[in-house]
Amino acid sequence: MERELQNHISQQYDNDLDQVRAHLLEMGGRVENQVRDAVRALLEADSEVALKVKSDDDDVNDMEVSIDEECARIIALRQPIATDLRLVIGISKIVVDLERIGDEAGKIATQAINLSEMVDSPRGYSEIRHIGNHVTYMVRDALDAFARLDAEMALSVAKEDKLVDQEYASAVRSLITFMMEDPRNISQILNVIWTLRSLERVGDHARNIAEHVIYLVKGRDVRHVGLKKMAEEVEKG
Amino acid sequence: MERELQNHISQQYDNDLDQVRAHLLEMGGRVENQVRDAVRALLEADSEVALKVKSDDDDVNDMEVSIDEECARIIALRQPIATDLRLVIGISKIVVDLERIGDEAGKIATQAINLSEMVDSPRGYSEIRHIGNHVTYMVRDALDAFARLDAEMALSVAKEDKLVDQEYASAVRSLITFMMEDPRNISQILNVIWTLRSLERVGDHARNIAEHVIYLVKGRDVRHVGLKKMAEEVEKG
Repeated sequence: MERELQNHISQQYDNDLDQVRAHLLEMGGRVENQVRDAVRALLEADSEVALKVKSDDDDVNDMEVSIDEECARIIALRQPIATDLRLVIGISKIVVDLERIGDEAGKIATQAINLSEMVDSPRGYSEIRHIGNHVTYMVRDALDAFARLDAEMALSVAKEDKLVDQEYASAVRSLITFMMEDPRNISQILNVIWTLRSLERVGDHARNIAEHVIYLVKGRDVRHVGLKKMAEEVEKG
Repeated sequence: MERELQNHISQQYDNDLDQVRAHLLEMGGRVENQVRDAVRALLEADSEVALKVKSDDDDVNDMEVSIDEECARIIALRQPIATDLRLVIGISKIVVDLERIGDEAGKIATQAINLSEMVDSPRGYSEIRHIGNHVTYMVRDALDAFARLDAEMALSVAKEDKLVDQEYASAVRSLITFMMEDPRNISQILNVIWTLRSLERVGDHARNIAEHVIYLVKGRDVRHVGLKKMAEEVEKG
């Protein structure tokens, strides 16, 4: 009888962990869509989609709060150790980055609304499309790496962030040149630059998520260590 | 004998909590100085101070990692519940915001170096001075609120953030006008705008810290609830 109770408790515990993982992935899918939709709203001057992205942010915020509650409850009631504890801590870190990605999507949606009123042929839109695709895939891959506990996949996401930073810097440089040549467009171009900056930050957050995945798989904190050291830690097996 | 051991263990536990609190405050003091020094470096065109701010960032990053380790160790070994658990979770959230404040200080220091090479009389510097002071005080007050477990003080920090956002928006608007009038200064002005944006984010992070303080004092998650609801939660006692 006692054995059965034990089994029952441990079954319940596994369920709790599975559930919070599932909720995190659900929230992740949600913010991934937010980013994709925000970029689409901007490129297609579709204010309705942009408004939808902004209103979705409430749901994402609610998800953050409820996942944090789940994590606190698991720690208090189940007192996880070792791998399980790392999973819970990892989730509570990842949720912060997901929420911030949602914030950036909301900012991009605001720029989409600002820009939808402009008539000129837009500068920098191909860069927004390109970098937007790039970081959306990074977010998806970071979440896949989490779902599969795949540290190598996480490592490759972290590596991508360097490329995004370069693409961002080069896009901004050329937009600045364009502003100097034609100052009438300054406001519009600034909206484009703000958007690019938000996308660059989405890339940063995807990288952060990837680093948390490496922590929870490998038990090693690879924030701030640089890509070379990070690759070594991942390969250590 | 057993009693003595119990006392000893619980003494050790209190020490662990005190220590991690002290480490967080130490890290907080460090990033507060980073922000202050970065702003000073920019206003006084002092590249040496700017480089110092950037190199300090390694220490701050190390502090983040080691505080996170302390929190994980306390959870695993001491299995805190109720108030203690909230303290540990709160600390592990606050540490993220402190690290990001350090990042923003580093970015401001980079702009300080870029701007130190310019000769023109700088536009927007009085706004940088003003908003820089404002957010530095917010960071300090948020940390004081944490040290004293003072939810009302935390609430007032959260309220300040709204003012910072307004100051930031108005400063950027006037800088954009200035860019349009004199496009030769676009690059320089953009460096000033990046700096203001970093300061505005420091304000956001101070607000986040304040929200975590309210959570750990009151046990209520006040992120995303708006200032009015937040004030009600704080007054509930």
